[in-house]
Amino acid sequence: MSNLVIEAWEKGVPHKGKVFAAVFPHSDDFSIACGGLMLKLIGEGYTGYFIRTTNDEMDSYDLTAGETVFRIEQETQQVAEFFGIQKVYDLNYKNHYLDHALLTEMRHRLITLFRFLKVDTVISFDPWGHYEENPDHYITAMAVEQACWMSGRQLDLPELKDMGLTPRFVTKRYYIARGPQESNRLIDISSVLDKKAAAIEMHKTPINNMWKELLAAGQGGKFEDKKDFVKKAMLESKPTLEGLKYYEKYRYIS
Amino acid sequence: MSNLVIEAWEKGVPHKGKVFAAVFPHSDDFSIACGGLMLKLIGEGYTGYFIRTTNDEMDSYDLTAGETVFRIEQETQQVAEFFGIQKVYDLNYKNHYLDHALLTEMRHRLITLFRFLKVDTVISFDPWGHYEENPDHYITAMAVEQACWMSGRQLDLPELKDMGLTPRFVTKRYYIARGPQESNRLIDISSVLDKKAAAIEMHKTPINNMWKELLAAGQGGKFEDKKDFVKKAMLESKPTLEGLKYYEKYRYIS
Amino acid sequence: MSNLVIEAWEKGVPHKGKVFAAVFPHSDDFSIACGGLMLKLIGEGYTGYFIRTTNDEMDSYDLTAGETVFRIEQETQQVAEFFGIQKVYDLNYKNHYLDHALLTEMRHRLITLFRFLKVDTVISFDPWGHYEENPDHYITAMAVEQACWMSGRQLDLPELKDMGLTPRFVTKRYYIARGPQESNRLIDISSVLDKKAAAIEMHKTPINNMWKELLAAGQGGKFEDKKDFVKKAMLESKPTLEGLKYYEKYRYIS
Amino acid sequence: MSNLVIEAWEKGVPHKGKVFAAVFPHSDDFSIACGGLMLKLIGEGYTGYFIRTTNDEMDSYDLTAGETVFRIEQETQQVAEFFGIQKVYDLNYKNHYLDHALLTEMRHRLITLFRFLKVDTVISFDPWGHYEENPDHYITAMAVEQACWMSGRQLDLPELKDMGLTPRFVTKRYYIARGPQESNRLIDISSVLDKKAAAIEMHKTPINNMWKELLAAGQGGKFEDKKDFVKKAMLESKPTLEGLKYYEKYRYIS
Amino acid sequence: MSNLVIEAWEKGVPHKGKVFAAVFPHSDDFSIACGGLMLKLIGEGYTGYFIRTTNDEMDSYDLTAGETVFRIEQETQQVAEFFGIQKVYDLNYKNHYLDHALLTEMRHRLITLFRFLKVDTVISFDPWGHYEENPDHYITAMAVEQACWMSGRQLDLPELKDMGLTPRFVTKRYYIARGPQESNRLIDISSVLDKKAAAIEMHKTPINNMWKELLAAGQGGKFEDKKDFVKKAMLESKPTLEGLKYYEKYRYIS
Amino acid sequence: MSNLVIEAWEKGVPHKGKVFAAVFPHSDDFSIACGGLMLKLIGEGYTGYFIRTTNDEMDSYDLTAGETVFRIEQETQQVAEFFGIQKVYDLNYKNHYLDHALLTEMRHRLITLFRFLKVDTVISFDPWGHYEENPDHYITAMAVEQACWMSGRQLDLPELKDMGLTPRFVTKRYYIARGPQESNRLIDISSVLDKKAAAIEMHKTPINNMWKELLAAGQGGKFEDKKDFVKKAMLESKPTLEGLKYYEKYRYIS
Repeated sequence: MSNLVIEAWEKGVPHKGKVFAAVFPHSDDFSIACGGLMLKLIGEGYTGYFIRTTNDEMDSYDLTAGETVFRIEQETQQVAEFFGIQKVYDLNYKNHYLDHALLTEMRHRLITLFRFLKVDTVISFDPWGHYEENPDHYITAMAVEQACWMSGRQLDLPELKDMGLTPRFVTKRYYIARGPQESNRLIDISSVLDKKAAAIEMHKTPINNMWKELLAAGQGGKFEDKKDFVKKAMLESKPTLEGLKYYEKYRYIS
Repeated sequence: MSNLVIEAWEKGVPHKGKVFAAVFPHSDDFSIACGGLMLKLIGEGYTGYFIRTTNDEMDSYDLTAGETVFRIEQETQQVAEFFGIQKVYDLNYKNHYLDHALLTEMRHRLITLFRFLKVDTVISFDPWGHYEENPDHYITAMAVEQACWMSGRQLDLPELKDMGLTPRFVTKRYYIARGPQESNRLIDISSVLDKKAAAIEMHKTPINNMWKELLAAGQGGKFEDKKDFVKKAMLESKPTLEGLKYYEKYRYIS
Repeated sequence: MSNLVIEAWEKGVPHKGKVFAAVFPHSDDFSIACGGLMLKLIGEGYTGYFIRTTNDEMDSYDLTAGETVFRIEQETQQVAEFFGIQKVYDLNYKNHYLDHALLTEMRHRLITLFRFLKVDTVISFDPWGHYEENPDHYITAMAVEQACWMSGRQLDLPELKDMGLTPRFVTKRYYIARGPQESNRLIDISSVLDKKAAAIEMHKTPINNMWKELLAAGQGGKFEDKKDFVKKAMLESKPTLEGLKYYEKYRYIS
Repeated sequence: MSNLVIEAWEKGVPHKGKVFAAVFPHSDDFSIACGGLMLKLIGEGYTGYFIRTTNDEMDSYDLTAGETVFRIEQETQQVAEFFGIQKVYDLNYKNHYLDHALLTEMRHRLITLFRFLKVDTVISFDPWGHYEENPDHYITAMAVEQACWMSGRQLDLPELKDMGLTPRFVTKRYYIARGPQESNRLIDISSVLDKKAAAIEMHKTPINNMWKELLAAGQGGKFEDKKDFVKKAMLESKPTLEGLKYYEKYRYIS
Repeated sequence: MSNLVIEAWEKGVPHKGKVFAAVFPHSDDFSIACGGLMLKLIGEGYTGYFIRTTNDEMDSYDLTAGETVFRIEQETQQVAEFFGIQKVYDLNYKNHYLDHALLTEMRHRLITLFRFLKVDTVISFDPWGHYEENPDHYITAMAVEQACWMSGRQLDLPELKDMGLTPRFVTKRYYIARGPQESNRLIDISSVLDKKAAAIEMHKTPINNMWKELLAAGQGGKFEDKKDFVKKAMLESKPTLEGLKYYEKYRYIS
Repeated sequence: MSNLVIEAWEKGVPHKGKVFAAVFPHSDDFSIACGGLMLKLIGEGYTGYFIRTTNDEMDSYDLTAGETVFRIEQETQQVAEFFGIQKVYDLNYKNHYLDHALLTEMRHRLITLFRFLKVDTVISFDPWGHYEENPDHYITAMAVEQACWMSGRQLDLPELKDMGLTPRFVTKRYYIARGPQESNRLIDISSVLDKKAAAIEMHKTPINNMWKELLAAGQGGKFEDKKDFVKKAMLESKPTLEGLKYYEKYRYIS
């Protein structure tokens, strides 16, 4: 018996006044991991923010690190506007170097932002997702998880109260994982599939990197072209779950 | 098919001469997490110790950090006496700041205590419990897990031998988790429910903090009063397991 | 030839509108290290703040850690009021545990406060003072030094701009050292000696600890009583410099 | 329904030209954890390397640390030759002190070796294996997991390209765990059981330590002698799985 | 009596075949700190390399971090070519985040490069320069100092020998400091003053940042224009030493 | 005018009952740095201990790391006996890997030993010695400096009191430096020169490493042989100070 609940798309803007923050280490994580959910939440009235924790410096195939950083910064901005995101905050930690020693400092930058933006809901990687091989993913996720509840405590960073940044819990969390996870929620994304595809394709630099790595590995033949690769590898959900062919799967905690 | 074993309450004092250490980050963790098990073990002859790893500095609603620390230190002492605990050791790390960089140093303080107190059994959080959002919990748990077996090795902290602190393995571990866990043992706590409730209520400062946070979140209506909140939120086990309504659930490793 | 300049006591309130932050790890550091300078600056129109980085948990002789923390928190508040300090911010890091791994996180809390309080001037320990044996001293000093100039940079913690916390350099620094230092400035404190003495005596808990350690070391005979100890050990400057008998000596950087 | 696949022993040397690296913290981990798999891979044409991350300093019962380090270094060399391993690389981190702060530095030593040796396949502990109590195990595993894919990226350690160490992904991973794991592959080791037993017995120092700890714990009676202990505790797999009595169980990722 | 030696400009190319590495955290450090010395060494036959440890992300006034990184990466390349530098290696650590925890990993990247490039001489900041307020400076300097001699040891990173990267000491070190330093060597740079000035002006982004900060602080009036600012603040040495008006001052260790 | 005091050799055993600990990272540091002072103190009645913080793993020219560790462990034991040292404690941290993150854990092992051995006096490197290029030296020195006074405080590691390890200050410190230092004390070692020379020669492995490095650098010609190298490079003090030709120079703090 499945524990999976399909979250209904709501009519009107029932969440008007609510705020979400999507917090991910990399530019393309936003769109690939939760493009559908963001479109749903914004459609239902949410104001959304992107908080990107790394500078994506490693994510190109034949550019310098500097050009990579600049291009992806711009692409992120463009994708965010395309999604209707209010603002992007780039924390710009060095890509692939997120580690456990950064957790407290990163958490405190997040708490400051969560209190300022009055965040109700976060979307991030699952800090408990197994076989996640990129430390940028689980370190970001751990910092987010800590920040969500400490943000509401009276004595964490108490000096911020004087600046009008009052304690406030982030009460809803959507966690996504690339490997095994104790999932409990599905978002049917079939109605926004094209928009999500278009967003992913706007991440030219990282998509190009993946594509060239595929070609270098001699596996380009699996796909017709880069567009087909995006479609098959990033949009088609496997396996079909609860009758849904296109979905995003989360651990939802409220 | 369940892997859960219900641990029988033994007659007499079969464990006389044995020693347990309950190692938790926070004052109220002791009572809430394992009040029942501690009463059982002490009843069966164990001598028990509390090792509190943090100073609980963050756990009040409208007190200063200093008053919080002092009050909770005193409440911890009172609760420990109420349970019949032999002594409380306060390691006093800064609350909410336990992190991976502290593991080795904290482990070595624990090894020193385990050898000195001749600990046979520990009770602590499960270092592998999923969706545990408080780093104080899993860092304490990781340090405990490491200390239990390194404590018995000849060449870990070998200088302690000269001080009469000889190597000795901690052979029994009860791990408790707030989220999903691979549990294998239940303790029926119905016979000590009132005493556990009374102990929890003695943690005035943290209970008051939880209660005021609930009120601030507009969720006070779920409970009649603070006493009812303790009863419903901290004593009634959900779901009923193996026919037990009041239980504590552990991963037991021997 | 001496590089030492004696800083003149100015008439009136020429520094009205200016703000200083005294940033020290311990409660008694404030008064002992720079009580005279603070009185001078406040007298000349400055608004002053105390930022205390540790919780002073280790600084008593026969109290528990919890009572120590609470008492010193209160004494700090009382001394601050006695000096005419506007507000005390307690960062409450664990006493004696300040280490290099905390530098970035502590620096960012300081930058946030410096921007918010619009700090012009800091008083702290000298990060380059030799033979300083307490890590709390030099770690605090290093964090302060970094925060002073990064606080003015456009791209350090850029998200704070949205909260009205705009970049602003701290342009004046008074560094004090307990050992050898490349000093360049003296403050004649003879006119405020009694007030400084009274302030130091208000730090009952740490002064009591020093005194009892002296007695335990069999060195109490050097002084008539505790009051005499404060006077001789903390107020009389040795050697006489530039003709001054009572002074505070700084490395001043502008 | 089981997800376990039994990996067939292949005829001839189909993997000629391929390279594996077994990366483990301790000398005896190599043989105990994956002796069977290494014999299979070498038999099928692989060239194999051992990368030992710690110096095994803690793993004796009544030797000094220095003699322990030297003996185990030599035993490791002998076992490696017995298995037909090409070369042993000793990273020699302090035993039991592997921690999260070492991850990036250790990863970079591994990336350098993986690129140089042109590693196709790694065998290591499972970074997600639950209830693994030795930090040396999971820290090594995390560093290996990160190194496998970062090793193939163009902008990780880009300076190595000038030294002829070009990016190259490690595409196959066998992860072994001592506790619960999401396993998917079994290796039938019955045909190499005697050779694996002989290899394990060559680890005289650590085996002797385990045996003496058993005797000290009064549990020697479970086994006839040390040889019987190796057989029962390290070779007989429990429970029988997919009809196999002697197997090694992995999480295989390709 | 001065310990300062004026290093003579040698005729011909007496150092042909020798290699230096200038290792600095920031792009403009290279030119400002040691432009003269680099021109001298290259003129005397040395092959020179730049190793830039940070990504300079913080060093602009009104650009995004991404554009800053890219621009400065390009400017660095241009300045290096202008100086006749063989190649620039960008380690790209996050600007202002260099800290003590990175020392070992950074050192090992440097050792690998020093062995590969067969570096004889390094130019860097003085790890013992007092009142240096930028941690990027002293952390880089500490890593360089460690790398210089460990690079020559047989058992540091011994696996590199198999890659042809044999141990080799870096025997000459020029250390520069922005504050007090135990200096012992002067380089007369009057003959290359114009070239050094031109190089500094090529660092448009950081120079622009300094200039705008000056204007914002209301101190622009001290200089005619940006060019004059470069000349007065970065080229004119104060005080005149050993009769030299334009010099670079070092701690030279051989 | 010199601040240097020549410490007189005392008659009889005036320090009977007193205890010193020489705390150094490496085996040969003991003899080379302070062989003379140790002989003096032992001669005057002191009981002495060696605390060696690293495992000296890197200090050979053509041995494996394992053999190096074992040989130097044995040589250290032999030299200690030759000096009349009571016992050697090997902390065995990985050679060349001492870093700032280890400070607290190492300090606590030292505090435990200082309290147990009732240490009055320490001899170690100067934590403030400039141009010391080996991090093992200054990290050990910083840990020692912290341990000396925290060892006497009531609330540092308070749990040790229950084990009879009562607080006790280490009141005398001799700091030695390889570079510039604010020295204040000389020990005339002419009377024990031969014994110190003999001790140094017993460190066969490290001396051999230095000698072979010299030969490899083509500088063997400066000395007749290895014995002559020890004499000229390690025993003859330069320059002559206060009329002494053979001395050890310290910063003495009491």
